[in-house]
Amino acid sequence: MRTVWFNGEFVAADAARISIFDRGLLFGQAVYEVAPVVGGRIANWPRHAARLADSLETAMIADATDWPPILAELIARNALDEGRVYLQVTGGSQGDRDFAQPQPMPPPNRFAFTQTADMLADPRAESGLSVILRPDLRWGLRAAKTTQLLYALRMKEEARIAGADDVWMIENGMITEATSQNAHIVDARGVLVTHPVHRRAAPGGVLPGITRMSVIDIAAAQGIAIEERAFSPEELFAAHEAFVSAAGSLVLPVTRVDGRAIGDGRPGPITRTLRASYIEALRGG
Amino acid sequence: MRTVWFNGEFVAADAARISIFDRGLLFGQAVYEVAPVVGGRIANWPRHAARLADSLETAMIADATDWPPILAELIARNALDEGRVYLQVTGGSQGDRDFAQPQPMPPPNRFAFTQTADMLADPRAESGLSVILRPDLRWGLRAAKTTQLLYALRMKEEARIAGADDVWMIENGMITEATSQNAHIVDARGVLVTHPVHRRAAPGGVLPGITRMSVIDIAAAQGIAIEERAFSPEELFAAHEAFVSAAGSLVLPVTRVDGRAIGDGRPGPITRTLRASYIEALRGG
Repeated sequence: MRTVWFNGEFVAADAARISIFDRGLLFGQAVYEVAPVVGGRIANWPRHAARLADSLETAMIADATDWPPILAELIARNALDEGRVYLQVTGGSQGDRDFAQPQPMPPPNRFAFTQTADMLADPRAESGLSVILRPDLRWGLRAAKTTQLLYALRMKEEARIAGADDVWMIENGMITEATSQNAHIVDARGVLVTHPVHRRAAPGGVLPGITRMSVIDIAAAQGIAIEERAFSPEELFAAHEAFVSAAGSLVLPVTRVDGRAIGDGRPGPITRTLRASYIEALRGG
Repeated sequence: MRTVWFNGEFVAADAARISIFDRGLLFGQAVYEVAPVVGGRIANWPRHAARLADSLETAMIADATDWPPILAELIARNALDEGRVYLQVTGGSQGDRDFAQPQPMPPPNRFAFTQTADMLADPRAESGLSVILRPDLRWGLRAAKTTQLLYALRMKEEARIAGADDVWMIENGMITEATSQNAHIVDARGVLVTHPVHRRAAPGGVLPGITRMSVIDIAAAQGIAIEERAFSPEELFAAHEAFVSAAGSLVLPVTRVDGRAIGDGRPGPITRTLRASYIEALRGG
């Protein structure tokens, strides 16, 4: 049985229970973060903390939890070597249901847990992912990492039914992102093209992925040209490589889109290099 | 202390607690219904049940709870005469977090509670509501009554800060609805203009309000012409009357929009008639 952290206490996973009047449960007023853990260490925490602060502002939740010691203790208690830590902060429980923000807000409900995952030896790094394209009908404030995720669940299920691994979404004729990963291509010129991100609650756009930031840093250091702009399905089909980045999957190649091969249908050299370099950085701490 | 219903049991409100691994809490995979209670009786249940079935399908949740006896018992135990019943169904708890639909799904988590409210003698029926206009950045599948409500919370708070009662939202240059109510106008010809609704998960649109359906039935029976089409802010400002409909507020006049008076700035005759007739219908059972 995992030990989870819930409102200040370390408890057994099945003992962590939240009021049905929690504003996260009733209204989706909740934000979260997922960070990779390698060798028992959390990667990139300062960037996660900065994004969490932005998400909390979008969700109108005030919280100043000092997460690093909590997450470190959680990793130790669960003897987690490789996987993820997940944390969530909600708008709290006010004892009844009302759309209006309580004045003052109740204390937020907060919880965190670990997940074991074999990220470094992921077989999908060799097999590649197969994705399908669907419209992006999510809400507009997608730079915030909130629990408004029902559309992502629907797309994951559509992918499963279609025999694919995931969906890449299209808005105004351009690819936005995957259901829980940023989407990227390497075009015929060898340029890494990736959707731009905005920190704040601007309409449209994509999640400012922490792994995406790391991958761009690595690519830039290796002299790979980067264009931060949206790309179209046509550019995707003509690309030499396509890949996704996220805390849980690190960097993974996308080799088929709507049943058509991308490039030669195998993981490309730039994707391989970026994945290997990112794993090296995670191992280095 | 209220008695609430939680997964088959009637319990004290503060004893109803749900796993932090609930898919409603983690992903917003949850749907709900709110129905008015007058004289201890629930109004319009068959229409709520039909919409709930549609919402469950959109949220990919299978549930066949027989709600009427549960809600009747809840109303009796809480001696509720006038107010609302609220029920919610989530995707259940699978013991961990994974976007993929569990195969098979865990049993849904289900809960319901009552809220006392003076709906019939609401002073806002005389004072009228003041609203402001804002962009509609909600997700696309708004015909389903899901807990993807963070944008609505944000708009409620923007209204509060602006000294208004609520927001009416604009998409593609047309009014969609209020944050938790359907929006309607009566134009200079005396025609009731109201946004069309779709039952299923079509992109865009508005919630198929049960009160909206009742109001349209009443208006039609009274010989009022009805046009089910979107209307623009310009049409709103030129309207003789504006009003909202919802389970919690029944029918309420909107007398100011962005600080400008609608009509003569007082509740209009058609709004008054529709509210009175709807209350009469609720009292009649």
